[in-house]
Amino acid sequence: MEKTYKQTAFIPIENGSVGSPKGFHTGGQNIGLRTGRPDMGWIYSETPAVAAGVYTTNVFQAAPLQVTQESIAEEKKLQAILVNTVSANSCTGQKGIDNAYTTRKWMAEHFGVADHLVGVASTGVIGMQLPMDKMKKGIVAIDLEGANAPFEAAILTTDTKPKHLAVQLEIDGRKVTIGGACKGSGMIHPNMATMLGFVTTDAAVDPDALSFALKSVINKTFNRITVDGDTSTNDMVLLLANGQAENQQLSEQHPEWPAFMKGLEHVCQGLAKFIASDGEGATKLIEVQVTGAKDDHSAEIISKSIVGSSLVKTAVFGSDANWGRVVCAMGYSGERFDPNKVSMAMGDLVLFEDGIPVDFDEEKAKDYLDGSSVVIKTRLGEGDGQAVAWGCDLTYDYVKINASYRS
Amino acid sequence: MEKTYKQTAFIPIENGSVGSPKGFHTGGQNIGLRTGRPDMGWIYSETPAVAAGVYTTNVFQAAPLQVTQESIAEEKKLQAILVNTVSANSCTGQKGIDNAYTTRKWMAEHFGVADHLVGVASTGVIGMQLPMDKMKKGIVAIDLEGANAPFEAAILTTDTKPKHLAVQLEIDGRKVTIGGACKGSGMIHPNMATMLGFVTTDAAVDPDALSFALKSVINKTFNRITVDGDTSTNDMVLLLANGQAENQQLSEQHPEWPAFMKGLEHVCQGLAKFIASDGEGATKLIEVQVTGAKDDHSAEIISKSIVGSSLVKTAVFGSDANWGRVVCAMGYSGERFDPNKVSMAMGDLVLFEDGIPVDFDEEKAKDYLDGSSVVIKTRLGEGDGQAVAWGCDLTYDYVKINASYRS
Repeated sequence: MEKTYKQTAFIPIENGSVGSPKGFHTGGQNIGLRTGRPDMGWIYSETPAVAAGVYTTNVFQAAPLQVTQESIAEEKKLQAILVNTVSANSCTGQKGIDNAYTTRKWMAEHFGVADHLVGVASTGVIGMQLPMDKMKKGIVAIDLEGANAPFEAAILTTDTKPKHLAVQLEIDGRKVTIGGACKGSGMIHPNMATMLGFVTTDAAVDPDALSFALKSVINKTFNRITVDGDTSTNDMVLLLANGQAENQQLSEQHPEWPAFMKGLEHVCQGLAKFIASDGEGATKLIEVQVTGAKDDHSAEIISKSIVGSSLVKTAVFGSDANWGRVVCAMGYSGERFDPNKVSMAMGDLVLFEDGIPVDFDEEKAKDYLDGSSVVIKTRLGEGDGQAVAWGCDLTYDYVKINASYRS
Repeated sequence: MEKTYKQTAFIPIENGSVGSPKGFHTGGQNIGLRTGRPDMGWIYSETPAVAAGVYTTNVFQAAPLQVTQESIAEEKKLQAILVNTVSANSCTGQKGIDNAYTTRKWMAEHFGVADHLVGVASTGVIGMQLPMDKMKKGIVAIDLEGANAPFEAAILTTDTKPKHLAVQLEIDGRKVTIGGACKGSGMIHPNMATMLGFVTTDAAVDPDALSFALKSVINKTFNRITVDGDTSTNDMVLLLANGQAENQQLSEQHPEWPAFMKGLEHVCQGLAKFIASDGEGATKLIEVQVTGAKDDHSAEIISKSIVGSSLVKTAVFGSDANWGRVVCAMGYSGERFDPNKVSMAMGDLVLFEDGIPVDFDEEKAKDYLDGSSVVIKTRLGEGDGQAVAWGCDLTYDYVKINASYRS
C-alpha cells in the first residue's frame, strides 16, 4: 500500500547512524547515572549545521526543549547536541530551566562555540533535577578521539536495542548521506513521545526548506507510531544539515529535492518502525494500512485508532485473528463512513468483506499472527485516502515494566 | 470535591436491583450458550413503561441497538427487554438485523405485547450470529414465577461480579424506587462501551423529560468511566419508568424533579463505579477529581485523559506514586492551561504544587496506593470547572484475559 521507494534510489550504509554523514562526530559515555552502561551521548558537527526541530505538544514541556528551541531560533543553526538519560528535567521549575542553560553553556565552552549553537535533550524520570556535578564532569571529559561508546546506545532508557540507520544518495553528482538515531520505548504516541530522534545530513539545505522537510516527514513517520497512547513531555526530533557534501543548496526549487525528501522519509520511517517494534514489552511490530478513506487525514485517524487499541494489541499478542476488535476500533475513531463498505485482512488473509465476516482458516491466521510482524489492512469505500501507522502488541512485560519503572 | 448527596435523601435498598421498582419482574436462565451459568436475562414490566435509551457512538452499531431504537421511537415505551450473552450480534449484516427482529417478535408473542414494546440487547463476540434455536427455546421458557437466576448475573461476560443497586425516595408523598443493573468489563470507554445498563423506576415520568434525564445523567456517570479506551459496538443504557408509584407525572416543572435527578444520578454513578472497579483484570478503582479548570467540559477532558493513561494505570497497579505520569497525561489531553498553576495529590498526600514537585513520604504513598481505591486529585488555576472520572489499574490479568478471549 505505502509506496516503496526503489532500493536503487539510496544505498543503505551498513551499521550507519547519526554520525555517518561527513563532518559529524558522535559518542557516548558513562557519567555515573547508571551502572555498567553509557548514560550520556553527544553529537558534534565540525561546522555549524542548519538545524530544525519538532517538539512535544504536551503542555508540560521539559526544560531542555525550551532551551533547544531558543538555541535554534537564534540563527537556525546547531553545532553540538548533548543528551542525558535518567533525569528528564521535566516539571522541575525554574531550577530545571537554569540547569538546562548551564549544561548548554558547559557544552559550548567545551567545544568553543556560541551557546546558541548547542542543543540539549533529556530522557528519564519526570520531576528529577539534573545531577549537575556528574553532568559537568561528563561534559568536560568529552573527547572526539577517545574510546567512546556508540551515541545510539548511550541515549536509551527501557529500549532493548539501539536504533540507527543511514542511507546515501546523489545530489548534484555529490554523495549525500542522511543518518539518524533515536530512542523510544514507553510514552510513545503520535505527536512525539518519550522519543528522541536525531537526524543528520551533510547535504547543504536552505534553513526554511529544512524545517518544512522535517515537519512534513515527521507527520508521516514518527507521528504515525504508538506504543501506549501517552505523549511525553520530552519528545523532540532534531535535524542537522552541515553542508559538507558541497551540493548546491537544497530547497523546494532544487530538481533533486524530491529525492532528498524521500531519503529523509526513508530514514525517519525506519527509525519510527524501530521504535514501534521495540515498544515496552513488545514482541511484534504491527503495521496498519488504511485505504479507500474519504481523504488521507481521515485514513490517518482511522489507522491510529486501530494501532492504538488495547484490545487489538492484546489480540495480536495472543495471535488471535480478532477482526471484530479491528473494525470496532475503526468505528470509534470519530470518522464517519459506511460500515457496509468496509473490508479487512491480516496479511493476505481476508477476514471481513463489505461489512460481512468471511469464513477463514483459523490455523493459517494463527500461523501468520505468530510472526514478528503483523500487517492489518483495512479498505473503506469512501475515496482515495490512505495512511499507514505502526505500533506493537500489548504484553505482560509492558505491565511489568511500567508497574515498577518510575518514568 | 464531587458533591455528595445527603444520605437522608434516599434510602438504599439492600440487595436492590433493576427488579426493585414496583411492577418490574426480572430473571435469567441458561439457554445452552455457556456451561454452568445463566446466559440470558430478561426484564418485564406489568404495564408499558415510558422508555429512553442511549446508544454507542461507534459507526458499527450492533443489530439489537438498531432494533431497540426503532422500538422506542414508535411510542417512547417498552414493556419487556431481552438480553443475551456470547454473541454480540454485531457486524452480522442483514441476517443479524433479521435475527434481532425475530427474537423481538418471539418475546412480544411470549408476553402478549406489541413488537415495538420489546427491546433487545446482546453482548459477546463480534461477528457471531445469534444461535436462534437456543434463543427461541429460551424465550418460550421464560416464566415470571419460575426458579429464575438473577438478571444481573445472567448478563455478565468477563465481569467477575454482578452489578446492581437501588434507592428509594419520596415524590408527592409516594414511595418511588429507582433500580439498576449493568455489565461492563472490557471495551469500556466514555461514550458507552461493551456496557449494558438497565435502569428502572416506578415513578411516573414525562417521556421527553425521561430522555433528557438519561442523557444528562449518563454524561456524568457512565460516560466518565474507562477501562481500556475501546468503545464497543453494543453499548446501550435503557431507562424504563412504569408509573406504578402513582406520583404526579415528573418533568422539569415538578418541584421534586431535582430529587429524582439526584436519585437517578446516584444509581447510575454507583453502577458506573462498579464497572470501573470490575474492569478486566482490575485490582483497584481509580477516581480522578479535577478542579480549577477553565470550565466543566475542560475538567472532564482532563479527568478522562488521566484515567485513560496506560502509564497512570500501570503505576497505580504497582503502587507507585508516579505523579509525573499524571501531570504528563494532563498535558497531552489537548486542553491548554498554565502548567505553573497545577497541583496534584493522591489521597491526602500532596505530590506536586504550583508546577513544582513536593517532597513526600514514599512509604506513606505506597501504603495509600496499596488500597483498593485510589483518588487522584488535580487542581488547575484556570477557573471553576470541575469533573470526576473513574477507571481501574492495568494489570497482567488484563493482558491475559484479552490475549485469549475473542470478544
